[in-house]
Amino acid sequence: MKIGILTSGGDCPGLNAVIRGAVLKGVRIHDDEFVGIRNGWRGLVDGDFMALDRHSVRGLSKQGGTILGSSRTNPFEGEHGGPENIQKRLDAQGIDAIIAIGGEGTLAAAQRLTDAGIKIVGVPKTIDNDLAATDYSFGFDTAVEIATEAIDRLRTTAESHGRCMVIEVMGRHVGWIALHSGMAGGAHAILIPEQPQTIEQICEWVEHVRDRGRAPVIVVSEGFLLAGMEEAHSHKGLDAFNRPRLGGIGELIAPMIEERTGIESRATVLGHTQRGGAPSAYDRVLATRLGMAAIDAIQAEQWGSMVSLKGTEIEIVSIKEATGGLKTVPQDRYDEAAVLFG
Amino acid sequence: MKIGILTSGGDCPGLNAVIRGAVLKGVRIHDDEFVGIRNGWRGLVDGDFMALDRHSVRGLSKQGGTILGSSRTNPFEGEHGGPENIQKRLDAQGIDAIIAIGGEGTLAAAQRLTDAGIKIVGVPKTIDNDLAATDYSFGFDTAVEIATEAIDRLRTTAESHGRCMVIEVMGRHVGWIALHSGMAGGAHAILIPEQPQTIEQICEWVEHVRDRGRAPVIVVSEGFLLAGMEEAHSHKGLDAFNRPRLGGIGELIAPMIEERTGIESRATVLGHTQRGGAPSAYDRVLATRLGMAAIDAIQAEQWGSMVSLKGTEIEIVSIKEATGGLKTVPQDRYDEAAVLFG
Amino acid sequence: MKIGILTSGGDCPGLNAVIRGAVLKGVRIHDDEFVGIRNGWRGLVDGDFMALDRHSVRGLSKQGGTILGSSRTNPFEGEHGGPENIQKRLDAQGIDAIIAIGGEGTLAAAQRLTDAGIKIVGVPKTIDNDLAATDYSFGFDTAVEIATEAIDRLRTTAESHGRCMVIEVMGRHVGWIALHSGMAGGAHAILIPEQPQTIEQICEWVEHVRDRGRAPVIVVSEGFLLAGMEEAHSHKGLDAFNRPRLGGIGELIAPMIEERTGIESRATVLGHTQRGGAPSAYDRVLATRLGMAAIDAIQAEQWGSMVSLKGTEIEIVSIKEATGGLKTVPQDRYDEAAVLFG
Amino acid sequence: MKIGILTSGGDCPGLNAVIRGAVLKGVRIHDDEFVGIRNGWRGLVDGDFMALDRHSVRGLSKQGGTILGSSRTNPFEGEHGGPENIQKRLDAQGIDAIIAIGGEGTLAAAQRLTDAGIKIVGVPKTIDNDLAATDYSFGFDTAVEIATEAIDRLRTTAESHGRCMVIEVMGRHVGWIALHSGMAGGAHAILIPEQPQTIEQICEWVEHVRDRGRAPVIVVSEGFLLAGMEEAHSHKGLDAFNRPRLGGIGELIAPMIEERTGIESRATVLGHTQRGGAPSAYDRVLATRLGMAAIDAIQAEQWGSMVSLKGTEIEIVSIKEATGGLKTVPQDRYDEAAVLFG
Repeated sequence: MKIGILTSGGDCPGLNAVIRGAVLKGVRIHDDEFVGIRNGWRGLVDGDFMALDRHSVRGLSKQGGTILGSSRTNPFEGEHGGPENIQKRLDAQGIDAIIAIGGEGTLAAAQRLTDAGIKIVGVPKTIDNDLAATDYSFGFDTAVEIATEAIDRLRTTAESHGRCMVIEVMGRHVGWIALHSGMAGGAHAILIPEQPQTIEQICEWVEHVRDRGRAPVIVVSEGFLLAGMEEAHSHKGLDAFNRPRLGGIGELIAPMIEERTGIESRATVLGHTQRGGAPSAYDRVLATRLGMAAIDAIQAEQWGSMVSLKGTEIEIVSIKEATGGLKTVPQDRYDEAAVLFG
Repeated sequence: MKIGILTSGGDCPGLNAVIRGAVLKGVRIHDDEFVGIRNGWRGLVDGDFMALDRHSVRGLSKQGGTILGSSRTNPFEGEHGGPENIQKRLDAQGIDAIIAIGGEGTLAAAQRLTDAGIKIVGVPKTIDNDLAATDYSFGFDTAVEIATEAIDRLRTTAESHGRCMVIEVMGRHVGWIALHSGMAGGAHAILIPEQPQTIEQICEWVEHVRDRGRAPVIVVSEGFLLAGMEEAHSHKGLDAFNRPRLGGIGELIAPMIEERTGIESRATVLGHTQRGGAPSAYDRVLATRLGMAAIDAIQAEQWGSMVSLKGTEIEIVSIKEATGGLKTVPQDRYDEAAVLFG
Repeated sequence: MKIGILTSGGDCPGLNAVIRGAVLKGVRIHDDEFVGIRNGWRGLVDGDFMALDRHSVRGLSKQGGTILGSSRTNPFEGEHGGPENIQKRLDAQGIDAIIAIGGEGTLAAAQRLTDAGIKIVGVPKTIDNDLAATDYSFGFDTAVEIATEAIDRLRTTAESHGRCMVIEVMGRHVGWIALHSGMAGGAHAILIPEQPQTIEQICEWVEHVRDRGRAPVIVVSEGFLLAGMEEAHSHKGLDAFNRPRLGGIGELIAPMIEERTGIESRATVLGHTQRGGAPSAYDRVLATRLGMAAIDAIQAEQWGSMVSLKGTEIEIVSIKEATGGLKTVPQDRYDEAAVLFG
Repeated sequence: MKIGILTSGGDCPGLNAVIRGAVLKGVRIHDDEFVGIRNGWRGLVDGDFMALDRHSVRGLSKQGGTILGSSRTNPFEGEHGGPENIQKRLDAQGIDAIIAIGGEGTLAAAQRLTDAGIKIVGVPKTIDNDLAATDYSFGFDTAVEIATEAIDRLRTTAESHGRCMVIEVMGRHVGWIALHSGMAGGAHAILIPEQPQTIEQICEWVEHVRDRGRAPVIVVSEGFLLAGMEEAHSHKGLDAFNRPRLGGIGELIAPMIEERTGIESRATVLGHTQRGGAPSAYDRVLATRLGMAAIDAIQAEQWGSMVSLKGTEIEIVSIKEATGGLKTVPQDRYDEAAVLFG
């Protein structure tokens, strides 16, 4: 078979390992051929392809980013988008099937294209770990590790100077990165989108920590909302271009804490460092296995399926059933972490 | 309740995080008191205890080793061992229940003591990830990460000098560390106890890699056996002074490869670096959750139980049912990795 | 002798290693006693001391922060400040001499106190490496390493998405961290306070990189100024609530680049992660040696002196001669790096 | 000009950064052309060349190993060696001058070839930091960092189990890696080739540490010799197959300590992990600057010169004057470290 691969959406450590896993398995076991589709769906819509053989994937398991490039293009938009045009592109290249590596939007698009008769298999990609169909997604472990290292570093400064440190991590809609890095880093409060808190509650935790003679460390997801302060959010959130402002919540909270508690407070926004660079060993193994399993799904002609992690096994599930709901942090996981607060 | 905690057997990153999780949950939620039992079962047998309060566990989630010390003492041996003597020690201290953190041997002892009426809950600890009752055990992720970093480093030297690098990792009876670090590091062969191979097969992989213009990287578990060379193994253990040789299998294989293929070959034995030092974020989260769950098991009076990871959840299982079989690398996981060999 | 030690000003990896080096050398070689002065000059002014013996410095060489705490208090201010009051505090504790670890301000204060008869020796501390009297100061190497790791990570995202990444590092008045991390990370432009540039020049570099098919990576010191845009800088400091904006120059430049070149651009502000956490091996060695040499200076009764690195040697120099001028990046070092721009 | 570059001898982090620095400076400033000489002097003798343009050095500053390959070939040996044959190879390729990156042997060869009229400039390379002509050589800082991380990890196991850990680091003739990593890691004894010690002295340090309730950590250079035990050393080199034993001194000392002190002792040999993989930021900066300065030396037609670090400056010195003496650890640096022993 001739298989096209594309990577879509934001960066995520492990994308290259997925590509390598798929290519090595396909070439060695099934004598497949591969074509790289550049810059996500855009390359498919525009017919922008690149050679992708066994040599191209050499040494890729540890390399961050994606050699295929990425974009946020929607394959149904634009003059050249849509299933018919895409099928023409595939036919012109002799591509039999596509492996689409991407998040919720990409998987939804993959489902629609499958419904239109295009042969696609998905690999879930979300740094935020917010896809319900998989226990963990590659990139998440690396992001948590990077955030934890930053928390470790910021803690020593907090303690030397008697300061409160507010560390903003990724997580627009779900709090998994904050939950795990906060637990790993020994945070005194973890603020996540699923659990709005009042500034009063936060200050109570902060003062409790200070009263025990320690320096408060707070980890906050970028998507956390202060309870009862929708007003503050509505202002803070927009920049001159009417887009959500970078930084945001951490920089909003830190001065509030300082003002109310008198404890010098500083915000640090970890930003893109969480999603670039070499993947952790965990993510390399997971991504490699997912890439290899995508070939199994193609062999089994399970179009519209995606690969996922369940326990220690890689399974093939239906995109339709697997997506649709955001995997939020459940109450019991938050309660478990909250035992360590304050 | 007054709870004693002990750590037994070899070092493992995350031991301190288990202790911290248990103490913080017990103190904060159930008003429990804690006593540290020094140096594993030896402290229990000898009555060697230490204070263990909330302050003692400060900052422990990221700290390697165990503040309680460890040993390989068997609680049933010696003049002061056995359930009756141990119960006296516990009574003298007013200890109601014990959390025993250790491997197969510790869990088996915990079961026997439970059968004798002592109230114990176990937390599984194995750097090798060889306990069947848990998807993963804390410390394993850190060991894989350290081994993977070493493989990454050794690879550049291999390629600059056209050498074959043989990297010996931990794994006396099972090959999990080799399997995961080898996949993560892009090894060209992974040699594990579960899958004996002939030196001819290994050399075939090595030559195949060389013929593709690359430098072979081989990861081998310390417990790997060369098929058809039991003789070599029986000799390998002795040096010129008739003492057991350190290193072992890696140093046995490397010169054999060099002799048969003509490719300059070097062995590196990672040794104890794999089991010391700060745990990865993954292991900190897992260990903290296990420690907290051990308190739940005590609250539920599930004596003779242990905590374990199933998928993303921490469960409480019976030690009796959970132990007994070594969790070896199954054939399908080896086959999956073998696609990447050569 | 009885020696007091204080750490003053911002956090810097290696402070604890200086303390450990001084205490171990003093205790072991000269039978000195030590007293910790809490929170910089404030502890001296307020008489806030802590025990500091050999046991207190155990394991400190690798620990970030300072066990003594720090502050920005000026010893000449306040009701209890000034040489006379300080001398009283020292007499009350029986302290013979002080080791003051701090930056330009601390060293200037140490000089004034020396002039007033107080026995002080200084250890230079500046994460920015801006003190002329020493080749390098501890903490700088760690900061450069952390910034370089961040650049490595951000680069993969830049390349996968065809973006321009602007990374803001520390350096209020001098560009050493930007210069070294930018060279190490392969930046396409390094923007430092010593070398104002126009936005047009920056965009020229950016476009040149893009035209070669690569993703531009720009490292900028927090103190960099855009040539001909003083207006922008004076405004940049205020947000919608009229508070000083965090981030600053990186977040100012990135949208300018995007607007002028059409290349999607993102800013990341590394912030406090650069000055917390475990020191690099280089900084541990340097800090330990400086701490030990401070004891030599005290033994030699060289009051008003400080220890410094010259080549591979630690020397004792006069604070008066050593300070006063900021050590800026010289033109030839900037020109050397600029060969790699664009 | 057309410039050939070769890398010779053992692996060393920063080789690629030297190549990149030289090529970028030569191409951009002087319009030089470059040719890669494969596998050290062997490529020159055999006429094995590779393209080396600006594109080839992309992203190399952080990459371990050498894209040119390396070997230990002596250019004066073999049928095709010697100045006349080499000059023919250079003429055939139109190469005007050579940059030779290597250790003592390479620099000596470069001098002899210079004397024979071949135009060569040297860049000193020694992971052991044993070249007198330069304050530090690239790769050394990375090796020290890796060794220090390993010591940090091994220490926690030592303390949890009350063991003595013996860590063998590189350093065949000089003890710089042991000295710096031992100081950084807080070792209780540092054993280097320049300072033979008796096993009795070592055991005295070990027992002193144990008596203070701590776990002894000993760092030993591979070239260290036990005073009064030449016999042991002469035997240690051979295993049961009469081949040189790997490991060596660490594995010799650990059981001796255990036998004499009763303290369980373990040896770990760090081996090749110290010289592979990504260079530290310090080494990237140093290596890049040395590579660029080599172009300056060529422009100045200073044949037979080499580039070196003096303080913070890169200087051009004569190979003849710069080499010849091993840079050993001086007595005062050893005494300084020894204050921290025991």
